Amino acid sequence: MRRIPIGLLGCGTVGTGVAKLLLESREVISARLGAELALRRVADIDTARDRGVAFPEGVLVADARRVLEDPEIEIVVEMIGGTGIARNFILEAIERGKHVVTANKALIAACGNELFAAAGRKGVDLYFEASVGGCMPIIKTLRESLVGNRIHSLVGILNGTCNYILSRITDEGIEFSAALAQAQREGYAEADPTLDIEGHDTAHKIAILSALAYGMRINLDDVFLEGISHITPLDIDFAAQFGYRIKLLAISKRRGEAVEIRVHPTMIPFGNLLSNVNGTLNAITVSGDATGDILLYGRGAGMMPTASAVVSDLVDLARNILHGSPRRVPPLAFAEGFVREIPVVPIAEITSHYYFRFAAIDRPGVLSTIAGILGRHGISIQSVQQKGRRSGGAVPVVMLSHRAREADVKSALAEIARLEVSAAPPVLIRIEDDTLES
Amino acid sequence: MRRIPIGLLGCGTVGTGVAKLLLESREVISARLGAELALRRVADIDTARDRGVAFPEGVLVADARRVLEDPEIEIVVEMIGGTGIARNFILEAIERGKHVVTANKALIAACGNELFAAAGRKGVDLYFEASVGGCMPIIKTLRESLVGNRIHSLVGILNGTCNYILSRITDEGIEFSAALAQAQREGYAEADPTLDIEGHDTAHKIAILSALAYGMRINLDDVFLEGISHITPLDIDFAAQFGYRIKLLAISKRRGEAVEIRVHPTMIPFGNLLSNVNGTLNAITVSGDATGDILLYGRGAGMMPTASAVVSDLVDLARNILHGSPRRVPPLAFAEGFVREIPVVPIAEITSHYYFRFAAIDRPGVLSTIAGILGRHGISIQSVQQKGRRSGGAVPVVMLSHRAREADVKSALAEIARLEVSAAPPVLIRIEDDTLES
Repeated sequence: MRRIPIGLLGCGTVGTGVAKLLLESREVISARLGAELALRRVADIDTARDRGVAFPEGVLVADARRVLEDPEIEIVVEMIGGTGIARNFILEAIERGKHVVTANKALIAACGNELFAAAGRKGVDLYFEASVGGCMPIIKTLRESLVGNRIHSLVGILNGTCNYILSRITDEGIEFSAALAQAQREGYAEADPTLDIEGHDTAHKIAILSALAYGMRINLDDVFLEGISHITPLDIDFAAQFGYRIKLLAISKRRGEAVEIRVHPTMIPFGNLLSNVNGTLNAITVSGDATGDILLYGRGAGMMPTASAVVSDLVDLARNILHGSPRRVPPLAFAEGFVREIPVVPIAEITSHYYFRFAAIDRPGVLSTIAGILGRHGISIQSVQQKGRRSGGAVPVVMLSHRAREADVKSALAEIARLEVSAAPPVLIRIEDDTLES
Repeated sequence: MRRIPIGLLGCGTVGTGVAKLLLESREVISARLGAELALRRVADIDTARDRGVAFPEGVLVADARRVLEDPEIEIVVEMIGGTGIARNFILEAIERGKHVVTANKALIAACGNELFAAAGRKGVDLYFEASVGGCMPIIKTLRESLVGNRIHSLVGILNGTCNYILSRITDEGIEFSAALAQAQREGYAEADPTLDIEGHDTAHKIAILSALAYGMRINLDDVFLEGISHITPLDIDFAAQFGYRIKLLAISKRRGEAVEIRVHPTMIPFGNLLSNVNGTLNAITVSGDATGDILLYGRGAGMMPTASAVVSDLVDLARNILHGSPRRVPPLAFAEGFVREIPVVPIAEITSHYYFRFAAIDRPGVLSTIAGILGRHGISIQSVQQKGRRSGGAVPVVMLSHRAREADVKSALAEIARLEVSAAPPVLIRIEDDTLES
């Protein structure tokens, strides 16, 4: 049976998972591929740690050069992470004519255009299924299964840490800080959770998927992002009263010749399957003109689910090697010459439905003052709730808007924040609900 | 730009959808493929009907031979359906060295082993993504994305007609016959609905998916099936009281060296995403050892969703043609020589949780008589409900069992049916609920 020698750069959690799968599931992989994915070398500076994997003699080494410079190795798996040395190693592997697999969403989002161009020049493949959605085959689905569709939109829950935290706040009524601490104790959040909770990780992923969906060059800089640290049990309760749950959504929509790409906490109706995706799970809805909505759901992170996605890329590349068909599928889903710059609509110009919560001193006329300001900015209100009258104290006033322009909303909220009766800055949460009147 | 000439056999609903996509979405398909899928000829005995498609001059013809015998045509799309002429045409296309795409689940389930062998001998591809789950890429996912996994189980809602009917009974409390009539009026059920409501269509699909999941030869004969025509609003109400919805599920599970493959109405908990899949929609959960559960959801039928799946196969085969890589992926997911006969566990030998409803004359001691019979057959009960006491009349007695063996259940129910106090045959509905104690 033909053997395809594989080299791994980096053996942290996911790298270990890949090694485990290649070694422990060798039989089933070979039965499908008709050849063997042979783990030839794994480079990691820490060769002493027990990873629970029985590496054959000589496989685990400290020096990355023993992967990069090994002429036998046909596919290099980059599992280092980050945008520094990982980028250099990938470029070197490409220059040496090796195919590359990575799970590095930060790198693909930031440097993908450069890396794909380099791979194209050398005629090698650079695959990255594991960079988005863990074991959900969202990249293959966009790239291969939806080829007959114009993609209209992507809406997804793509960060398990945020989804876990929001699920805890929702289920237990605890504050964000307590939910974050719980996520950290459970191993679902990093000691420095910024990349997750501020939405950066989700932005990386939706920037990549948008490129695949529309045939656009990857554009991370123009993705709008807003994290979840300001989400309170109070807003989650109000959301539930309107029939909504709050999720950190990645939203990408075609808007004429441009696209909207944004990441923010969003209210979605209970009837939307995404609202039932809880804990660390991920899901994404893709809307195509022929398919309508399709949804994928699964574990978006973790050692073995992510390793499963890496192995699917390895098998794809091995099939290309076995059949002499490198570059069979273009990395960004569209053939060379068809990947364009597509402008991203600035957040100020999007329209959405909105949830507002004002903390207003409870005086006669306050509601009409707020409504008046919103009205002068062209924002019409479809529903108002005022809770717990406390004469003289601040009470929450909650409103749902009809479809409005973000710039108008921001101006109106700034004006309302300056009112003498405003006891705290207004809260704004965007709503995705197709059943609402515009 | 290179052109790949395509021929269609049959131009009914899905065939028309394929023609529409190829003609109307030519640009986006070419942008992805880097070549053109050129619709060269469509054969259908009815060339007069207006299909709402602007066929170029000479494309629509009455004679299938003009597709089969055209040496230019590299891929034939079989859209005739059934296991008669469709089989002959596919075999002839293969013999002539053409690649074939079909959506014909009945044919693949019944004759797939023969057809794949023929395609293997000629070195051509036979693709069938559209045969299961409409636009959900379940076949590509099993065949390519989950290659690193041992698949443990598949559980799916794979027939939109049945799901629509069960959704109507659930939402409106109407009887099966009224829901079926409604489905027929809405165009979601055929005039003769047998193939759908008796579970045959679902059986075809799960037989195909099981082969792909486990590397087994397709075995339709041993799939157990039970339809939905006996499902009543009463049982749906009882199910809801226990926190369950009733869905027609296709269930396929690895059991040691054998597999269970069965299709029947099943109670599943509200918390299971499948219980929220309503109307004509389809969904399937795949459980792999590395991935855990992943779920795909989308339109399982209809002109354009199914056409989308056919076009994804066409693009895959076109890429193989362009790159000289035919047979790049084995049709049944496992390489030649690794597809085995795997025995299917007879239904009598499966174990499950069960819901029973007995119509018992309301006399003292009836409950203990029934419980006694169940107990003597080794079936223990975890929950009992007796509703609406009517002295002397028949009342429904509902029980949920612990895990029990189907053969024991059938014997016990037969004995209970013979009791003098039994006013009607007992009702049995299987339960899938991982949270239950065994």
